[in-house]
Amino acid sequence: MAERIDDLNRNGLKLIQDTNDFRFGTDTVLLTGFVNIKKYETTLDLGCGTGAIPVLLCGKTEGKYFEGLEINERTADMARRSVEMNGLTDRINIRTGDIKDIQSIYAASSFDVVLANPPYARRNGCIGNEKTRIDGNIKNIEDARHDSRSAGNDVARRETLLTFDDVAAAAAWALRFGGRFCLVHKPARLVEIINTLSAHMLELKTLRFVQAYAGAKPKLALMEATLGGRPRLTVLPPLIIYRERGIYTEEADAIYNG
Amino acid sequence: MAERIDDLNRNGLKLIQDTNDFRFGTDTVLLTGFVNIKKYETTLDLGCGTGAIPVLLCGKTEGKYFEGLEINERTADMARRSVEMNGLTDRINIRTGDIKDIQSIYAASSFDVVLANPPYARRNGCIGNEKTRIDGNIKNIEDARHDSRSAGNDVARRETLLTFDDVAAAAAWALRFGGRFCLVHKPARLVEIINTLSAHMLELKTLRFVQAYAGAKPKLALMEATLGGRPRLTVLPPLIIYRERGIYTEEADAIYNG
Repeated sequence: MAERIDDLNRNGLKLIQDTNDFRFGTDTVLLTGFVNIKKYETTLDLGCGTGAIPVLLCGKTEGKYFEGLEINERTADMARRSVEMNGLTDRINIRTGDIKDIQSIYAASSFDVVLANPPYARRNGCIGNEKTRIDGNIKNIEDARHDSRSAGNDVARRETLLTFDDVAAAAAWALRFGGRFCLVHKPARLVEIINTLSAHMLELKTLRFVQAYAGAKPKLALMEATLGGRPRLTVLPPLIIYRERGIYTEEADAIYNG
Repeated sequence: MAERIDDLNRNGLKLIQDTNDFRFGTDTVLLTGFVNIKKYETTLDLGCGTGAIPVLLCGKTEGKYFEGLEINERTADMARRSVEMNGLTDRINIRTGDIKDIQSIYAASSFDVVLANPPYARRNGCIGNEKTRIDGNIKNIEDARHDSRSAGNDVARRETLLTFDDVAAAAAWALRFGGRFCLVHKPARLVEIINTLSAHMLELKTLRFVQAYAGAKPKLALMEATLGGRPRLTVLPPLIIYRERGIYTEEADAIYNG
């Protein structure tokens, strides 16, 4: 347990994280830059971790209300303390629970927007070019709920506890008809993701790849699907992060620091 | 009927086309730049039109043998005359026939590679940003076989005669296990394309979008799927056509004129 308070670079917002456990990364920030949440909309973050997404989105959008669902008790507790520290208890609620139990946690069609930054790697394999280092060794749901020795790394990075199908099923349950499911994932898994979304009536409507440099292969895919949406995909030009080594493009700079 | 002979800008190859009918375009050339055909491989072009793809690929690759399947008798005849004119009768054969009859035309698993530049628009709608002008008025298969008044425009641009599902089914029939299906289509239809490919055991393995300029939305998607392939998509950096107005990027110049 090595908690510290990190500055979120946005309206003075801060976040409590544990340096020994999973901390939010670039992909989380890019997802908050990609989603478009309107004033009266309610949003659910599936697997919210320490609450980076709801806290950042309170700073970036006028969204009415954000709910975060997190399976690990201690992580959820950190998220709740961050929400209090930022004075956001009227806009954010963190709930402890399992995404797979969603039907007993929320009524169907409760949210306008559902977000997820799900585990990228399959249970038994790496995905993408990075060799993801797995620190924890989560074997069952009770470990995930109570383990406090950096177990979150495993759960957050690998489909130990839930598959992408579980995540899509939860999103489809929680969304109102016409509501949007926004997520970030690895391009390498795009076929499976699209097939799974379609199987849950989530029609992919917007796709944007993220490239480190202009000529590089995409390393992330930002996606928005609509529950019951009509087929017609908009592919945006890729989001390029660096103009040259160490120098952000204008667009990336606005997302990270804007 | 207004035939003319066009230079293909490649090893002195030429192609007979009718200025009143559908002529090959940028997408055809980009597809021939995207596919990778090895020396001993056999290739089938589904809906070969005037034969631009097989003729160009004879110039660009060492592929052993190319077969073109075309429904319209007069178009197939133009293609055959182009093959003769280029002295390629030992490497290219043009067959008149309907893609939907593929099971009676070719034995299963006959080809290493199948190519298609299928109609982009659904039967009753436009797709993409362009307003596709439809000149013909093809109502049935007999019209498509015999009509000579620019009917090919309709058949080539719109799913009048066959859906993308028909095309994918034909590719899956004609390919050997592990063979590749290469195609070009509109990004707007990517979800349907991926779902349909998956339904026919064609796993999308490579995806490359084509953008007119660096910051523009993609207007075409180049794709390679493998019959029975393992899931893992490689997304390439986009192919950018113009560096600035009227000036090709190096890569586009190599594809068009290289």
